[in-house]
Amino acid sequence: MEKSHPVEAFGWAARETSGVLSPFQFSRRATGEKDVAFKVLYCGICHSDLHAIKNEWGNTSYPCLPGHEIVGVVTEVGSKVQKFKVGDKVGVGCMVGSCHSCDSCGNDLENYCPKLLLTYNSTYYDGTPTYGGYSDIMVADEHFVIRIPDNLPLDACAPLLCAGITTYSPLRYFGLDKPGMHVGVVGLGGLGHAAVKFAKALGVKVTVISTSPAKKKEAVERLGVDSFLVSHDPDQMQVAMGTMDGIIDTVSAPHPLLPLIGLLKSHGKLILVGVPEKPLELPVFPLIMGRKIVAGSGIGGIKETQEMIDFAAKHNITADIEVIPMDYVNTAMERLAKADVRYRFVIDIGNTLKIT
Amino acid sequence: MEKSHPVEAFGWAARETSGVLSPFQFSRRATGEKDVAFKVLYCGICHSDLHAIKNEWGNTSYPCLPGHEIVGVVTEVGSKVQKFKVGDKVGVGCMVGSCHSCDSCGNDLENYCPKLLLTYNSTYYDGTPTYGGYSDIMVADEHFVIRIPDNLPLDACAPLLCAGITTYSPLRYFGLDKPGMHVGVVGLGGLGHAAVKFAKALGVKVTVISTSPAKKKEAVERLGVDSFLVSHDPDQMQVAMGTMDGIIDTVSAPHPLLPLIGLLKSHGKLILVGVPEKPLELPVFPLIMGRKIVAGSGIGGIKETQEMIDFAAKHNITADIEVIPMDYVNTAMERLAKADVRYRFVIDIGNTLKIT
Repeated sequence: MEKSHPVEAFGWAARETSGVLSPFQFSRRATGEKDVAFKVLYCGICHSDLHAIKNEWGNTSYPCLPGHEIVGVVTEVGSKVQKFKVGDKVGVGCMVGSCHSCDSCGNDLENYCPKLLLTYNSTYYDGTPTYGGYSDIMVADEHFVIRIPDNLPLDACAPLLCAGITTYSPLRYFGLDKPGMHVGVVGLGGLGHAAVKFAKALGVKVTVISTSPAKKKEAVERLGVDSFLVSHDPDQMQVAMGTMDGIIDTVSAPHPLLPLIGLLKSHGKLILVGVPEKPLELPVFPLIMGRKIVAGSGIGGIKETQEMIDFAAKHNITADIEVIPMDYVNTAMERLAKADVRYRFVIDIGNTLKIT
Repeated sequence: MEKSHPVEAFGWAARETSGVLSPFQFSRRATGEKDVAFKVLYCGICHSDLHAIKNEWGNTSYPCLPGHEIVGVVTEVGSKVQKFKVGDKVGVGCMVGSCHSCDSCGNDLENYCPKLLLTYNSTYYDGTPTYGGYSDIMVADEHFVIRIPDNLPLDACAPLLCAGITTYSPLRYFGLDKPGMHVGVVGLGGLGHAAVKFAKALGVKVTVISTSPAKKKEAVERLGVDSFLVSHDPDQMQVAMGTMDGIIDTVSAPHPLLPLIGLLKSHGKLILVGVPEKPLELPVFPLIMGRKIVAGSGIGGIKETQEMIDFAAKHNITADIEVIPMDYVNTAMERLAKADVRYRFVIDIGNTLKIT
C-alpha cells in the first residue's frame, strides 16, 4: 500500500521485471485548483505498457502502474478549471505535465518539451510517482485533459489518445494529408490500423506493408486499404518502388530501411513512430539520390490531440478493439507480445476493476 | 585515341583502377542546334573525381575523363540556342542530360530525374561515353549550361558548380536559410567551406564541427564561422547539444550520427550530402523524441544552380582554391586523398593543358 496522498485509489501494477500485474492500493492527490478528477471507465493497452512493466527500456520504477489511453467521466473539478465540468466525458493520453515555457510548449508541442512528464513511470512535481490508467480514478491538470465528443464510444476511442495521435500527427506535420497522395503504413497493429483509418479519412491512397500475408484480406475488406504488400516478397516490393509520397513505419522490431526508402518517390518521407532498441542501418546513397527524408515523430501536442479526437468524431473513426476484463490483463499482455490482437486491447475498468 | 565524333578533343583520363591520369586524345560531337560549345579555361577537382578514377563506387567505365566543375568561354552555339552567344562566360556542372518529362524535370529538379545523364562516366543519347572537364573543349545542351556573371573570377567560381550547389540547395529546400538560425557544418573541405560561405551570406549563425582542431583558427578568422566544435571532444559537444536548427553533413567517411542528432533542436534537420560507402547507424529514439529529420540531398536543379551562381555573384562568394597546372593533377589527387588542400584544387586548363 502506498499512501502519499489523501485520495485512496486502486489499480493493477507490476512489481518487478516479470511484468506480472496484480492489484495495488495507492493514492492520488486531492483535486487541485486547475485539476480535473475523473472516474476511469476504459483504458487501452499500448505496446509501450508491455515494454514498461518488463523494464525493457531500462527506465522503469516499480511499482509500475501503466496505461496512457484513459477515458472516463469527470467527478470533480478545481476552482480555476475552465474547460470541464462534472459529468463531462474526458480522456488523458501519454502526458500529464510540461514546462509551459520552452519553445515546444509555446508552439503547442508539449510532447517535445524537455521537461515532459509522462502519465506513468515519471515523477510528478510533488516528488511522487505518476500512475497510469489501469486504475479506478485519475486526476490531471486540465491542460492535459482531452474532451471526448458525444458520438465517440468511450471504449473504442480510448486507443486514439496514444495510437491515434501518434499516427495522425506525422500525417499532418509532414504534409502526408493531401487527397490523392499515396502513403504506406508499415505494420498493421494498434498504431498501423489507426494510421490506415486517419489516412483514408484524409483522402489518401493507403498501402499496407506487412510481413503477414494473412492480414491482407481483413486489411482490404475491413479497413479498406487500397493495396497490400508483403514485405519479404521482392516481386511485390519491386513493382511498388518509387510510388509513395510517404510512409508511416510503426514497427519497433529491427528491420531494414532500404526497401522502404525504395518505395518512396523522390522527396518522399519515411516517418518512424516505432522505437527499435538498437540503431537501424541507414543507407545514405538512396536518400541523396531522391532527396528523401527519414524522420521520427512522437505522439502529438495537446491542441493537436484534441483536433485529432474531433476529426475522429467527425469521420466516425475509432480503434478496432477487444474489450477485456481487468483480471484478463496478464493474458492480454502475453497475447500482445505475440501480436495476437486486432488491433487493440481495451480494459473495461468501470465494470470489471474490483477493489479488493 | 577515340574517334566517334568529328571534333578532335584532348584531355587527361584514367585508364584503370590505379586512377593515374594521363594525356588522352578523344572526340566531341559537332555542335548540335541546341548545343553550346566552349573552350574550357578552368576545372575544379571534386572528391567524386577521385572516387571515379579509382572505381571506388564500382561503376566506372574506362577511359574515365573526369571533371564536373567546368568553366570557359563560348566558341560556338547551335542555330536554336537562345540563352548564349559566342564569347559568353559559361559553366557546366554535374549534369548534361535528363528526360524533361518526369515530375522532377517538370519541377526544375533534373538532378533527381531517373534518367539523369552525368557529365562524365555516363552514356550519352548517341551511345557514346560522356567525358568531363579535364579537357580542352566541352559541348553541352544549352539547358545544362550555366551563365557565369561578369564579376565572378572564373577559376574560383568553378567549384560552385558542384560544391556550391550541393550545399546551397539543401540550405534553401530545408528552410535553413533564415537570418538568425543556427546551422552546423560537418567537415571543412570543399563542400564544407562552401556551405559555410552560403550560410553566412544568408545571415545564419554557423558552427563548424570537425575532427581537426587545427582547422579552427582559419575557420574563425578567414571564413568567419561563429564557433567551432571538435567532434571528438565530448565536453564541447555536450555544451552545444540542442542548439542547432540544422546541420549540413559533408563527410563521406563512416561516422556516428548520434552526436549530430543530439546537436539539433527539436524539429531540427540533419542533411547528408556526403556519400559513405556503407550504411550509417541510425538511432531512432533520439529522432522520435525531437521529431528530427535525417535527409539526403544531391546537387541541385539547373534553375537553382543559376540562382546559386547569381547569389554568389551578388554576395561575392567564391571557393578558396589552389590553382594547379594540368600535369600536377596526379599529385593533387594524392593530396586530396589526404585532405591536404584548402579547400579546392582547380586545374588551369586554359594555360597549362598542352596538346600532345
